[in-house]
Amino acid sequence: MRRRVKVLVPLHVTAMWLPVYTDNPLTTGSIGVGVLLKPGAVVEVEAGSGGRGPIPHISAVLKRLGLSASVRFSAPVPLGAGYGLSAAYTLGAALGASALAGRPLIEAAQTAHVVEVEMGTGLGDVIAEFYGGGIEVRVKPGAPGVGVVDKVPHPRRLAALTHVFRREDTSSMLVRLRDALRERGAKLVEKFLEQPTYDSFLELSAEFSRVMGFLTPEVEGRIRRCKKQMHGYYAKKGVLVVLLDVNEVEEVEECLMREGVEVKSFGLSHVGAVVLRE
Amino acid sequence: MRRRVKVLVPLHVTAMWLPVYTDNPLTTGSIGVGVLLKPGAVVEVEAGSGGRGPIPHISAVLKRLGLSASVRFSAPVPLGAGYGLSAAYTLGAALGASALAGRPLIEAAQTAHVVEVEMGTGLGDVIAEFYGGGIEVRVKPGAPGVGVVDKVPHPRRLAALTHVFRREDTSSMLVRLRDALRERGAKLVEKFLEQPTYDSFLELSAEFSRVMGFLTPEVEGRIRRCKKQMHGYYAKKGVLVVLLDVNEVEEVEECLMREGVEVKSFGLSHVGAVVLRE
Repeated sequence: MRRRVKVLVPLHVTAMWLPVYTDNPLTTGSIGVGVLLKPGAVVEVEAGSGGRGPIPHISAVLKRLGLSASVRFSAPVPLGAGYGLSAAYTLGAALGASALAGRPLIEAAQTAHVVEVEMGTGLGDVIAEFYGGGIEVRVKPGAPGVGVVDKVPHPRRLAALTHVFRREDTSSMLVRLRDALRERGAKLVEKFLEQPTYDSFLELSAEFSRVMGFLTPEVEGRIRRCKKQMHGYYAKKGVLVVLLDVNEVEEVEECLMREGVEVKSFGLSHVGAVVLRE
Repeated sequence: MRRRVKVLVPLHVTAMWLPVYTDNPLTTGSIGVGVLLKPGAVVEVEAGSGGRGPIPHISAVLKRLGLSASVRFSAPVPLGAGYGLSAAYTLGAALGASALAGRPLIEAAQTAHVVEVEMGTGLGDVIAEFYGGGIEVRVKPGAPGVGVVDKVPHPRRLAALTHVFRREDTSSMLVRLRDALRERGAKLVEKFLEQPTYDSFLELSAEFSRVMGFLTPEVEGRIRRCKKQMHGYYAKKGVLVVLLDVNEVEEVEECLMREGVEVKSFGLSHVGAVVLRE
């Protein structure tokens, strides 16, 4: 294998989740549901020293793996908004360095999960981004190979528009929401798992977003005029996600633009993280 | 959800495997490695009675799920050659019927695995086809959600050509090969798992195929003149799989045709089974 690889990692915007903490970071994680988006993060990894990046996770994950590598990153979205981007960068760096060393990807993915848990920046993003699956359901919490991911059937030509309206640090958010997640959040997740269909996903995700204070009347008010062609929408931290038919993307984009809501358009990623030899 | 779905399921040609039998079909399976191919099986499922198909697995899986559905199938390859097609049909029928009923896909996939194990037609195809992953590695045996799948990084523009040269019933094959799999096969699988790279995949898969008697001097002799542009090849039951750069497909196809070896061309499927609402 050549000494350079490119790793493509989908983004992940959780719609509903219930944190599950154990005394082991491999079994710590979340159950819930989220949407995987493409294009996602691109992580280029070259053998050799380096390991710096926009987040401390990168050096942490390479150190844990006992590997050195130089890592470059890019993504169409900002860090800290709610796209699971720190997980995507951490996972990409771990997979790329392990691939160059001829080591198993699943161990790399587990190490990325452990780093995310220890840094308090994510509980379910790594397993979702490793496996892919469009609208994914974490039915058992934990790292890849420990947790279990299912997927929700959805309409054929589904697209997503996203809008960033706020940023918030994940670890402080998790503390702030602890009680709401454990009580009202848990009930919504359980209700979804009883009937994991697209329609119940749309309904319960919006409700979850409102309960957690992500989806405010202000945000809903701003998109009100463009709602007709949307299947539904939800928000996670500072990201609004609108689901709609791919044929309606252009019209809804224009409508939202008129309302001053700037959006990016994505496809759903059924593919998990992929390592490509250059 | 409308009363009709289409399920796309990749094909799976195992390259190396070690059967693992337990007293529970959910934990029975195989460890090993195989290639996922697209285009694969298309399974159309409509609510209502029916459930007949080209294989008894369909009625078995619907009965186990307590669902009725009418099921139509197609695939670019024949049953019984080594493409994991009975698993693809069983999995597709289970996923489609469950999606129509609003039930979890992972339970449907587990039921398909159980039916394949009980009918003796496959041990690792269902989990590989449910998750996808290009070149997949079953690192822990069992049904989806029980077993664990990893993936092998491979060159960017990889394609596969296949040639069917024989058919053999899977259950009688498994009996015939029992000792060879347990002894020489197990060593090759272990060696691969120690260093799961593309190069070792190519080398060890060919060796495994020769040890099991799939890759005969006769078959190797027939493709000898076209070997230069191949990355490598292996055989499973009656299917020969050639891996090569997508740019070389046309030339190698022509070369093989001149030797009287008829081939079909495929891409690698990084996507697992997908349920599409019509």
